[in-house]
Amino acid sequence: MTMTERTPTYAYEDFTIGSEWSLGSKTVTTAEIIDFASQFDPQPFHLDEAAGKASILGGLAASGWHTVSMFMRMMCDAYLLDSPSQGAPGVDFVRWKHPVLAGDILTGKTTILDQRASKSKPSLGFVKMHHDVFNQNGTLVCELEHTAMFAKRETVQA
Amino acid sequence: MTMTERTPTYAYEDFTIGSEWSLGSKTVTTAEIIDFASQFDPQPFHLDEAAGKASILGGLAASGWHTVSMFMRMMCDAYLLDSPSQGAPGVDFVRWKHPVLAGDILTGKTTILDQRASKSKPSLGFVKMHHDVFNQNGTLVCELEHTAMFAKRETVQA
Repeated sequence: MTMTERTPTYAYEDFTIGSEWSLGSKTVTTAEIIDFASQFDPQPFHLDEAAGKASILGGLAASGWHTVSMFMRMMCDAYLLDSPSQGAPGVDFVRWKHPVLAGDILTGKTTILDQRASKSKPSLGFVKMHHDVFNQNGTLVCELEHTAMFAKRETVQA
Repeated sequence: MTMTERTPTYAYEDFTIGSEWSLGSKTVTTAEIIDFASQFDPQPFHLDEAAGKASILGGLAASGWHTVSMFMRMMCDAYLLDSPSQGAPGVDFVRWKHPVLAGDILTGKTTILDQRASKSKPSLGFVKMHHDVFNQNGTLVCELEHTAMFAKRETVQA
């Protein structure tokens, strides 16, 4: 059932309500902002320093979808790739609170809001998560919530 | 105030309640799925055909964040880049309804749910949008809602 060759460190049972999970840091480069925007969100303030400075964003700013994608990688590296993750059906909300600019260093944390076993699939459980992403000044740049699915430990170790 | 050199075709006033906006098609390639996943979501079912086939996704499947990023580009090309878009504060929800697999051809549409002028910034208005993304079989693969900000026509033409 698991996607990894070995038994992952974390399973459904580890994501206890109220627990906090630190996300590692990610430095945002100009090249990455422009590369993502060129592919997916070619609005001038995501492509050009002068256009970014002239906009309400105040500088060359990452697409909001780039910010959540960088967050996804931070979550993968922090715990998801070392868990029997079964994906997620969606996202409850995303709030982009503050521009993410070239040179910013992102960090973050996940707080577990709820945990419940699946009734229809006894091997699985649902974990509701709140995520905060901060810049190097401690300013909240993005917050989002989603419910993730994980296999239970007994399933992973079988 | 606008981000474009010329007067855009669309302004806040054009996004009338109930109007529908078609999004052009996008073919999803294996290389793009793997490239996005390698950067942002390196879970095995997004990186490897065999792991995708073995998972509930049923094949090499795009990261959900890749799907919404491709949707963002479709929205840019359909109307956003030809409008005085002022960005968006967030997303109300995203639901990934069906896997997006290599070779899929995505299309979509935007339906305007609400339109209201800003009270604090008379030059702007808010437009609440529902977006549906379909594959080549007409299956809904993703839906999301968000509120976008646009400049009013009088501002753009000033």
